[in-house]
Amino acid sequence: MVSSTPPNPTASIIVIGNEVLSGRTQDANIKYIATRLGELGIVLREVRIIPDIIEMIVRTVNEMRASYDHVFTTGGIGPTHDDITSECIAAAFGVAWVKQPQVWARMEAHYPPGQFNAARQRMATMPAGAVIIENGHIAPGFSMGNVHVMAGVPAIMRLMFEALAPQLQGGAAIISDAVHSNDLREGDLAAGLSAIQDRYTALDIGSYPYFRNNVVGVTIVAKGIDAAQVRAAIEEVQELFRSLGAEPIAGEAAG
Amino acid sequence: MVSSTPPNPTASIIVIGNEVLSGRTQDANIKYIATRLGELGIVLREVRIIPDIIEMIVRTVNEMRASYDHVFTTGGIGPTHDDITSECIAAAFGVAWVKQPQVWARMEAHYPPGQFNAARQRMATMPAGAVIIENGHIAPGFSMGNVHVMAGVPAIMRLMFEALAPQLQGGAAIISDAVHSNDLREGDLAAGLSAIQDRYTALDIGSYPYFRNNVVGVTIVAKGIDAAQVRAAIEEVQELFRSLGAEPIAGEAAG
Repeated sequence: MVSSTPPNPTASIIVIGNEVLSGRTQDANIKYIATRLGELGIVLREVRIIPDIIEMIVRTVNEMRASYDHVFTTGGIGPTHDDITSECIAAAFGVAWVKQPQVWARMEAHYPPGQFNAARQRMATMPAGAVIIENGHIAPGFSMGNVHVMAGVPAIMRLMFEALAPQLQGGAAIISDAVHSNDLREGDLAAGLSAIQDRYTALDIGSYPYFRNNVVGVTIVAKGIDAAQVRAAIEEVQELFRSLGAEPIAGEAAG
Repeated sequence: MVSSTPPNPTASIIVIGNEVLSGRTQDANIKYIATRLGELGIVLREVRIIPDIIEMIVRTVNEMRASYDHVFTTGGIGPTHDDITSECIAAAFGVAWVKQPQVWARMEAHYPPGQFNAARQRMATMPAGAVIIENGHIAPGFSMGNVHVMAGVPAIMRLMFEALAPQLQGGAAIISDAVHSNDLREGDLAAGLSAIQDRYTALDIGSYPYFRNNVVGVTIVAKGIDAAQVRAAIEEVQELFRSLGAEPIAGEAAG
């Protein structure tokens, strides 16, 4: 495969907090960030969900920032005792955790006397060298090197991600196309599909069976940065479906 | 804290496959497994979501199985080219990937002549020493040492998890209680809550702000294996709420 396109930057997400690990909540941020990264041409390679434990946060941040071009964290930047992400980022980078003068000043001006207390002051304290990520709210996120530290509350996380997005080093957008059939099993198309994958080494071709409303079928998704190749691969999959007596239907199977 | 209760076993989940990382789908298995593990007294300490890449699967499985008592994988055990979990588990354990005679025989008997093809035969091929996890379907999951290999399709994953559950080494069930208030901000209760956490070191007390339908509030969740302590801590949180002029409401805030 001859190509002059530079490789796409890579990313990971670290979801910090006990609420997903305890089963209390369903993560609501990964899908959003994953989708937006694809649009920006950044390949999400790994997600880790970890608890509010200092050593785990520090170790995970250091592993991820050494392995990927961008690291996004969600959660743990509020004012309570279980919000320890910011201090842990400072520890991971080996820098002091210090007053951020701009954020400190505006939070101090915002709250009535006495309410800019020690807990809230922690939200105006950041690793030395952090660059703030604005979000239209009083307490921002921040970037420290290639680690982008965002809130866990989805509405606020999204504002932070979108404030950050224009500054991210991206790559060619990742194009996706799909076809499905209600008349096929994976075991019948596997050999033909594998041969198609072998002919399109620059693409990532995935096979996803579904079982819903008593309908059993399979969706094939092709992804890559070359739209013409993605389209050609999907057309080959449609031919494969027909050769097996199954009707191809464009796009993903309805949820 | 004097206690004769042995520590709870730990676990991690590895979600294998590109579909969550690409933003195509929302993971639908973590919350189920996390909730059930809590009921079984097994503490879920980490989740990793990784792509269908051999080296990443092998490395992640080996890191996780050395770090936690139980490892659960979901995804990548179907018949298509992107289903490589089973071979990777064999590689991680350094064992051969071999015909599982019992599964092979019943799949061969199940399919019409010619349909138990090379792709389907892969589903009857497992790491040497694997113990199958039945699920009422033709192709089972398997356990290899402390690594439990399950399907990614949620309905099938759940059958496999429930077949496995009675054999898992668990611990004291983790009890959870909660209280919330629509009249409070985290920054106002943080100091008092931190003092409560300091008095209940065996519990995990989490603070979760919410912003919905124009209502801003906070939920406090206490978790631990001692129900009386969990209850006492939540009662102290209720007192804290009242001392701040906020009405405590039992349980989680409605979704």
